[in-house]
Amino acid sequence: GERLGGATPKQFCALQGRPLVSYAVRAMERISWISDIIVVVSPENIETMKTIIEKYGHKRVTVVEGGITRHRSIFNGLKVFAENEFSSHLLQKPEVVIIHDAVRPFVEEDIVSKVVMAAKEHGAAGAIRPLVSTVIASAADGCLDHSLERARYRASEMPQAFLFDIIYEAYQQCTDYDLDYGTECLHLALKYCKTNAKLVEGTADLWKVTYKRDLYAAESIIKENLSQQVCVITNGKETLAQVAFLLPESLKSQMKVEAITIPLRKNDSRLQNIISGQCYNFVCVNDKRCAIQDAQELVDTLEKSNTPLLCPVVLISVHLDISENNSFSIGMEDLTTIKKFARETKKKNILVYGLLIQYK
Amino acid sequence: GERLGGATPKQFCALQGRPLVSYAVRAMERISWISDIIVVVSPENIETMKTIIEKYGHKRVTVVEGGITRHRSIFNGLKVFAENEFSSHLLQKPEVVIIHDAVRPFVEEDIVSKVVMAAKEHGAAGAIRPLVSTVIASAADGCLDHSLERARYRASEMPQAFLFDIIYEAYQQCTDYDLDYGTECLHLALKYCKTNAKLVEGTADLWKVTYKRDLYAAESIIKENLSQQVCVITNGKETLAQVAFLLPESLKSQMKVEAITIPLRKNDSRLQNIISGQCYNFVCVNDKRCAIQDAQELVDTLEKSNTPLLCPVVLISVHLDISENNSFSIGMEDLTTIKKFARETKKKNILVYGLLIQYK
Repeated sequence: GERLGGATPKQFCALQGRPLVSYAVRAMERISWISDIIVVVSPENIETMKTIIEKYGHKRVTVVEGGITRHRSIFNGLKVFAENEFSSHLLQKPEVVIIHDAVRPFVEEDIVSKVVMAAKEHGAAGAIRPLVSTVIASAADGCLDHSLERARYRASEMPQAFLFDIIYEAYQQCTDYDLDYGTECLHLALKYCKTNAKLVEGTADLWKVTYKRDLYAAESIIKENLSQQVCVITNGKETLAQVAFLLPESLKSQMKVEAITIPLRKNDSRLQNIISGQCYNFVCVNDKRCAIQDAQELVDTLEKSNTPLLCPVVLISVHLDISENNSFSIGMEDLTTIKKFARETKKKNILVYGLLIQYK
Repeated sequence: GERLGGATPKQFCALQGRPLVSYAVRAMERISWISDIIVVVSPENIETMKTIIEKYGHKRVTVVEGGITRHRSIFNGLKVFAENEFSSHLLQKPEVVIIHDAVRPFVEEDIVSKVVMAAKEHGAAGAIRPLVSTVIASAADGCLDHSLERARYRASEMPQAFLFDIIYEAYQQCTDYDLDYGTECLHLALKYCKTNAKLVEGTADLWKVTYKRDLYAAESIIKENLSQQVCVITNGKETLAQVAFLLPESLKSQMKVEAITIPLRKNDSRLQNIISGQCYNFVCVNDKRCAIQDAQELVDTLEKSNTPLLCPVVLISVHLDISENNSFSIGMEDLTTIKKFARETKKKNILVYGLLIQYK
């Protein structure tokens, strides 16, 4: 939190309304072969973390109280699998344990899998990245002592993985100095268990949210991911057939987006599949004057689907007026109806926008 | 460009419509005691760079053809001050030369000044930052050899500064191997001129735009900077006096923004000052039906000011209807007028939005 310059620890900073740590937990949670997720947080944030787990429906998560340094916190997390006193129910000791940061929200299954496989073989493994800047050593007088040859060194990133017995042994053996001033788990495995970790080249998205600019970057990436899919819904009327066909084509040609059209039918499995596939953008096209019935039906389906809406759903309700003798005006009553509807759905994290298109 | 995964070299990527390199040039240009700015670009981008200088009105800039590596490009840049063949007119050799990256757009005068003063005293100086990740050395088998103690090392960043004679001598002395595989100017000064550079702690905003996420971050920072000031303009009528007073207060309470209200008068020096102070956000409030006269007058003033509009100006033209018997509707004619006006001003990089507020 210090480097961010804010009062909120960065793992609890909200991106699109949702705390960073929730994205990181989700990234691990969706990997089916991970049996337990231990989140280590400082004592004052335990309640906050429990609320987040509840709110975003995280599963398989155990919250553990952290220590005053990074290593002490990780050690506390490991103890859950080995010492009764740290958990009401002892979790089953795993063969391999993954160590990750709450501030690295975009980790993919592929790299986690590679690191775990390497840990199984070598006892320890960690993701690495090329250095972005040259690393230099300074002398006591604040002047350059020497610079390192950039190609020979790597940045040590997360995730890292270890055979549980190796990393737990390393933490039990290590000194208070290590626990207080060390930062590198791979170093402990090497020093206390003679285990040379396998280094695995990671992807650029492994980076650690450290500064305010990283929060900006993370938010932009999340927004980009959210806007990758658009679902156009029509009520199946003939007058809208052409729009239903052309709108996804037009969207696809103008931006990087996956766009499809489906007719709105009650209990349609296609719509169910799209919702559970984490589509957050819907366009409802209808030819009735300011009709919100279709939008209402979609909202009902979203609610019934029981998919946790981790980010706001955007729903644009388009009224397409192609009648011959239309006049361009909108009444107060229609406005009030759609505003009231939008206000209600906003509470459910669904943002409704009304759009009137008149075409002669 | 390679690390970004795109075809455009990252210094030419557009942020809010303007190439990254233009922001970096501007950052240096506004420092009055820098006499010349040399931009070194690859042969195929020289014309692009010249167009950018023309378009954004950059001054004191000389474009020089780069080499095939970083060091060869920097050497080419230095030759402009020493060898006739590289420039039609030899620029006056400076006492101190600053070396900076086109992909570090947010450098502040303070750090440039500190680095230059240190270079004057020590012969060489460079900005440094704490390491974000632990640095490790890998063995030939791809396993961990050793990890560096994070606190003892620093990341070498830009800007760096040198006594011209020292860095030029270093480049003349260094080997082809240095020119082809080296990356660190401080290293050359140490190796060939026995000059131990002074290391100066830099701020977090010195970071280098390297990956796509860094472009996202840079764009967000630019947007944030652009939205720090809002100017509310009214035509001075009594009915609007309360709005003119309350709107800036309300804006300030809801977001981090500097907001002021001024009356719209021809040739008003206050408005001139605001425009030349790089305010990019204007709200014109009037009580006439869809009147664009005020907006038109502001656009004229903006044009006459000759301030280069480096980023789009946003102008919200608000029509506030507080008459007793108003009806909520908007005619096609009014819409056409404001749309036509907006289309014209868009060519001048001024984005006009019309807003109708009805209050009973």
